[in-house]
Amino acid sequence: MAKRIAYLGPPGTFTEEAALLYDKTAHLIPFASIPAVAAAVASGMAEEGVVAIENSIEGSVTDTLDLLIHESDLLISKELVLPIEHHLLAKPGTEVSDVKVIFSHPQALGQCRNFIERCFPKADVVAALSNAAAVEEMMASSYPAAAIGTARAAELYGAHTLAKAIQDQASNVTRFVVLAATDHPATGFDKTSLCFSFAEDRPGVLCEVLQEFAQRNINLAKVESRPSKESLGKYIFLVDLEGHREEAPVSEALRRVREKTALFKLFGSYPRYKEK
Amino acid sequence: MAKRIAYLGPPGTFTEEAALLYDKTAHLIPFASIPAVAAAVASGMAEEGVVAIENSIEGSVTDTLDLLIHESDLLISKELVLPIEHHLLAKPGTEVSDVKVIFSHPQALGQCRNFIERCFPKADVVAALSNAAAVEEMMASSYPAAAIGTARAAELYGAHTLAKAIQDQASNVTRFVVLAATDHPATGFDKTSLCFSFAEDRPGVLCEVLQEFAQRNINLAKVESRPSKESLGKYIFLVDLEGHREEAPVSEALRRVREKTALFKLFGSYPRYKEK
Repeated sequence: MAKRIAYLGPPGTFTEEAALLYDKTAHLIPFASIPAVAAAVASGMAEEGVVAIENSIEGSVTDTLDLLIHESDLLISKELVLPIEHHLLAKPGTEVSDVKVIFSHPQALGQCRNFIERCFPKADVVAALSNAAAVEEMMASSYPAAAIGTARAAELYGAHTLAKAIQDQASNVTRFVVLAATDHPATGFDKTSLCFSFAEDRPGVLCEVLQEFAQRNINLAKVESRPSKESLGKYIFLVDLEGHREEAPVSEALRRVREKTALFKLFGSYPRYKEK
Repeated sequence: MAKRIAYLGPPGTFTEEAALLYDKTAHLIPFASIPAVAAAVASGMAEEGVVAIENSIEGSVTDTLDLLIHESDLLISKELVLPIEHHLLAKPGTEVSDVKVIFSHPQALGQCRNFIERCFPKADVVAALSNAAAVEEMMASSYPAAAIGTARAAELYGAHTLAKAIQDQASNVTRFVVLAATDHPATGFDKTSLCFSFAEDRPGVLCEVLQEFAQRNINLAKVESRPSKESLGKYIFLVDLEGHREEAPVSEALRRVREKTALFKLFGSYPRYKEK
């Protein structure tokens, strides 16, 4: 039986593209939200789940971080990096000069603003609730319309591509993670993700923890803070470090950090994505 | 002439509530986006602008952080903290038992999920693009509907309040900042916001900078990272510290940090919000 992978749908999203890139032969099951993807894996409806965790322009996907911190005991078993390419799609037969309305998710529009303002200064922009919904609404529109969408959405909805890769910044990539019941054995080129918080709020407390990594020459790929949800000014820190939790310097640093912190949660160790 | 304050509209948003709380006598001008609010102040259409910067549950408002980092030279002259209260609104005459459809911005729905699932398990939820738009669409709906909205939106659209303060977590507050051409003179109870990044990525570099604050006993109210927009893994760090940039230990620490960092930008010093 093919492996079942839950992902944030509907079909035609970037998450579906990432899941296909990860495992073309898997049976992909769309869910309506990031917590639903996690619940599907935790309950056995799927073996793995794919969710976005960070975009190079927009920053972290806070729903995924909050899920890992507060709600789920799933672990990260892999990371995937997908270049984000927005295309301008239309119904077959629609000419560029006909386009009066452009459907777009507000975030996609933000990433293609220069292109749209230059090439379609007079078009009305209509906000849609997802990249896939923008294409669906465009295909149903009675006006001559275009939509900002993915290559996969063009394929699924039978849309024609008017313009390719219209995003303003070429280096737009999203990092996805595969969530599963276990993390990944050491490969020698790994990353470990964790979060922690402090019982008391005094100068230098974060620094003491970061020092545990620095003095063991462990490089941090990410340091980030999220609100604790209790009050403003109380934070949970998220760290990605280079190395596997089973390797000696990392396991020693993690043990020391655990002693110095109030909350401490490991999200797992997994192979680091290699740029090609 | 009354002071002109630009804010993220439309009327009925929490930002309008914050601007009214800050200065009831000002002439409030709504703008469609956070960059538009900043442009209005920078160009002299308004003396000040009010934008949200952080919510105790959702975290930072990344549009505002990216504006301060990359796009604007405006400074923060004040911070405001507003409790976020969601209400269930309907057309006058609509009974609770009639409600078949609930209009809501997805974020507001996320903050009221327990209430909605318990009290309206069978209602269809329709996503709207803002809290104000949810109320507007509810008032125009031909089905018996309700909307999750603000007290101010109820007033503006003539809606009736079916249920008050329906958010799941009582401690839901948003921090807003006032943007202006200058920051605020020292009051003895201040905060300073800044950002910085590093030319090289080696273990311990962030820690060395945080040490400059810790060893001078300067408490950090916030440490956060944002993507540099260049590539994954390159970050800009944002720090809020307690104290004014003109005070001796703070100005000395800032001078040292400026020497150790590649990018360094001060967002200003301003009075710290006092909880009542």
